Amino acid sequence: MSGIRVTVWNEGIHEKSDEVVKALYPKGMGSQIAQYLQKQPRIATVHVSELDHDHQGLPDDILNTTDVMTWWGHKAHADVSDENVARVYQRVLDGMGLIVLHSGHHSKIFRKLMGTSCDLKWREIGERERIWVVDPGHPITEGLPEYFELPHVEMYGEHFDIPQPDRQVFISWFQGGEVFRSGCCWQRGKGKIFYFRPGHETFPIYYDANVLRVIYNGVKWAAPSGVATVIRGNVEPIEDVKPAVSP
Amino acid sequence: MSGIRVTVWNEGIHEKSDEVVKALYPKGMGSQIAQYLQKQPRIATVHVSELDHDHQGLPDDILNTTDVMTWWGHKAHADVSDENVARVYQRVLDGMGLIVLHSGHHSKIFRKLMGTSCDLKWREIGERERIWVVDPGHPITEGLPEYFELPHVEMYGEHFDIPQPDRQVFISWFQGGEVFRSGCCWQRGKGKIFYFRPGHETFPIYYDANVLRVIYNGVKWAAPSGVATVIRGNVEPIEDVKPAVSP
Amino acid sequence: MSGIRVTVWNEGIHEKSDEVVKALYPKGMGSQIAQYLQKQPRIATVHVSELDHDHQGLPDDILNTTDVMTWWGHKAHADVSDENVARVYQRVLDGMGLIVLHSGHHSKIFRKLMGTSCDLKWREIGERERIWVVDPGHPITEGLPEYFELPHVEMYGEHFDIPQPDRQVFISWFQGGEVFRSGCCWQRGKGKIFYFRPGHETFPIYYDANVLRVIYNGVKWAAPSGVATVIRGNVEPIEDVKPAVSP
Amino acid sequence: MSGIRVTVWNEGIHEKSDEVVKALYPKGMGSQIAQYLQKQPRIATVHVSELDHDHQGLPDDILNTTDVMTWWGHKAHADVSDENVARVYQRVLDGMGLIVLHSGHHSKIFRKLMGTSCDLKWREIGERERIWVVDPGHPITEGLPEYFELPHVEMYGEHFDIPQPDRQVFISWFQGGEVFRSGCCWQRGKGKIFYFRPGHETFPIYYDANVLRVIYNGVKWAAPSGVATVIRGNVEPIEDVKPAVSP
Repeated sequence: MSGIRVTVWNEGIHEKSDEVVKALYPKGMGSQIAQYLQKQPRIATVHVSELDHDHQGLPDDILNTTDVMTWWGHKAHADVSDENVARVYQRVLDGMGLIVLHSGHHSKIFRKLMGTSCDLKWREIGERERIWVVDPGHPITEGLPEYFELPHVEMYGEHFDIPQPDRQVFISWFQGGEVFRSGCCWQRGKGKIFYFRPGHETFPIYYDANVLRVIYNGVKWAAPSGVATVIRGNVEPIEDVKPAVSP
Repeated sequence: MSGIRVTVWNEGIHEKSDEVVKALYPKGMGSQIAQYLQKQPRIATVHVSELDHDHQGLPDDILNTTDVMTWWGHKAHADVSDENVARVYQRVLDGMGLIVLHSGHHSKIFRKLMGTSCDLKWREIGERERIWVVDPGHPITEGLPEYFELPHVEMYGEHFDIPQPDRQVFISWFQGGEVFRSGCCWQRGKGKIFYFRPGHETFPIYYDANVLRVIYNGVKWAAPSGVATVIRGNVEPIEDVKPAVSP
Repeated sequence: MSGIRVTVWNEGIHEKSDEVVKALYPKGMGSQIAQYLQKQPRIATVHVSELDHDHQGLPDDILNTTDVMTWWGHKAHADVSDENVARVYQRVLDGMGLIVLHSGHHSKIFRKLMGTSCDLKWREIGERERIWVVDPGHPITEGLPEYFELPHVEMYGEHFDIPQPDRQVFISWFQGGEVFRSGCCWQRGKGKIFYFRPGHETFPIYYDANVLRVIYNGVKWAAPSGVATVIRGNVEPIEDVKPAVSP
Repeated sequence: MSGIRVTVWNEGIHEKSDEVVKALYPKGMGSQIAQYLQKQPRIATVHVSELDHDHQGLPDDILNTTDVMTWWGHKAHADVSDENVARVYQRVLDGMGLIVLHSGHHSKIFRKLMGTSCDLKWREIGERERIWVVDPGHPITEGLPEYFELPHVEMYGEHFDIPQPDRQVFISWFQGGEVFRSGCCWQRGKGKIFYFRPGHETFPIYYDANVLRVIYNGVKWAAPSGVATVIRGNVEPIEDVKPAVSP
């Protein structure tokens, strides 16, 4: 692979309508993440797509040249068209990696891939979060300490209604008494999916060095590999089989 | 639990339109399965629902009194309404067990719960199948030999596009050179899901003692248990937490 | 099954040598657990075995009539003979359930079944623990609220060096800033294994109604089922295979 | 990473004592594998270790500079010293990858990491094997067709007594009627483990292009990454916790 082509999909509404968010992310959360990623080794290109772009930022020429997509949405999950969700979904099954961030847990694409409600608890008092590594050999933990802290966050709590992750990478501790499965890996078709909790729009989460490192590690982990072709449908038997019966 | 209430959902089209199938299952495949189940210990009631019944066999009074549903469909997956699929889906997340049989792999409800295409290979020459137990401690294998054979079947082959099962219970060998993950367990929300491969309509599969035993074991395994209540949404912190910041 | 036969294996040293523990558990922790279990439905018999009993409490007539064993040890893991560990291990592979409690994480039998160090963090300041249900459809959570608290505990923290659990049932939150995978399920051979964290000897943990309920649920979940016989070694081919080559 | 340092551990007995094997692998199976690996991209060094080498081929200077070890053994599993097994085991928990080949399923190191008997069925009539990819997005399948065949093999059949794999990559079909989980991934501590079935000494398996490709893919997949340090033992609480009780 000559380099990973990333699309950072960002809803892009809070940044334009909320003064607190605008001050934190003047160019948008997507740009902040993209700016970081494009400086990292093994990253070929980083494109930012937003909901108000052409084809909701998901035209064919973007989708077909994306190895890994990151997804942040919150207010406008319902506005992403079912047709576009179906196209992203097909790309994931065909091998595109998907990194779902924070409130993206309720996006159509994540729920469609999970097959569950993806509901959770939440509270927004700016409490402290500690994110613990529980799978220290996983590539997504590369370069991290055994835990890292975010001083002020929106809390997400269990029960998080997801299929049990294939790998559980992070578990969060919150000051207010909750825990959360903060970093979760799954595979659907040939595509790798990583959900990562941090990211509320009113806190400067995407300036945190550890958070950015995790997103970058996630992109590298989710980049596709594997066989090119799988045959489905009606197939011939091995040459020496005698049909046992005419149905 | 005073007994498991089962609904056998059966598409019920082949049995009415195809002479071979009519001869094999004069009362329908659903009735054949139901007749067996209702004689087994721990089964309270067995109801047969078909696509041409009221509300496609899925009215509220049936759904709300079903502990485990079995699902067989083939020709008319698309005819099951999205609204009914959504209602079965919600019941599974709330704890109803679901046993998906044979060509039900392509049903809307199974694909919605899996989050993948559920595509596979197939061939219909009446070849031999050996179904091997690969998880001999699993309750679904109770009373079975280490493998059992079906002399004439439709073949299903890999790659089967499903999320990796939580437990892999059976793997099939086919005379014509294929293998298949024939018995697979997952959980979605509070609901247990079991996919079981055997069951083509033109072969007398649902008269086979081992096949029936597996369906019965599956019903017992998938019957719900667990906590009654999960709280979601906005919640209060532990009493001694001081909000760290006003967001 | 006519009822589950339980053996509560208890190291039985702290209760005899430490005044605090003696006051809490005058008849031993094993007796306290056994007393509760033997009043519950579906439990046939409960036997308490201790390290200073005949054959370290693990003679053949006990092992061969035990469906589920609970294991509590702390100071004397090394004193359990390798031969006895090997015999318990074989019973687990053959289908006996095993419930490993608290400091039993470092027992020889648990480490042998896990294949890892089972190391963890710990701290003993009597802090608060909240045990969250993260798999609310799992039989081990039956009858529980979405979380329960223990006011004063010894803390266990991540990273806990275990193979990723087949099912993650509980995750603990600790006042002092740690999280822990507190309830974990695995299968080894035909045997089901449940690790449950609570239980330090200097706190009255085994008087807590929720803790006792979890142990009971665990016993029911771990009780064996499944096929009687698996053939291994050299076997004959299907009758119609022609050996392709003489090796 | 500047390149993967591989050690190919080979028992090296059949090649010296059996004329058939000597003719197939005049320099030993280990050399045949090593010769292939050292020509591949990303491989830094390949060292062949054999049982009759110094420290059974496992001295500290070898172990401490090995990123991934492959392991082939058959006749002399019992001769590998427990002390050497413990040292390899510790290296795996610390992050060294391990590729276990064919009859290595019964090696001390594999059984210690699995926590099960690793028993299986077998038959040696030179029958045909088809190895099916069941996880086409997995890095270990890169560059492979959807299945590949080996014309004459020793058969291994289910039930294979292993913990359910974290990822099931390959399943084999055998002419004589059996199936087998031929490619299985696990993690233990920080180390990745891949079991790959093919490799009987009396057939030219390690000359097959697909088999060699899988071993190479496995080496790349198992190469270590992840955090450097995990703290265990007694730890301090978060600064603002008040000990709730003196134990």
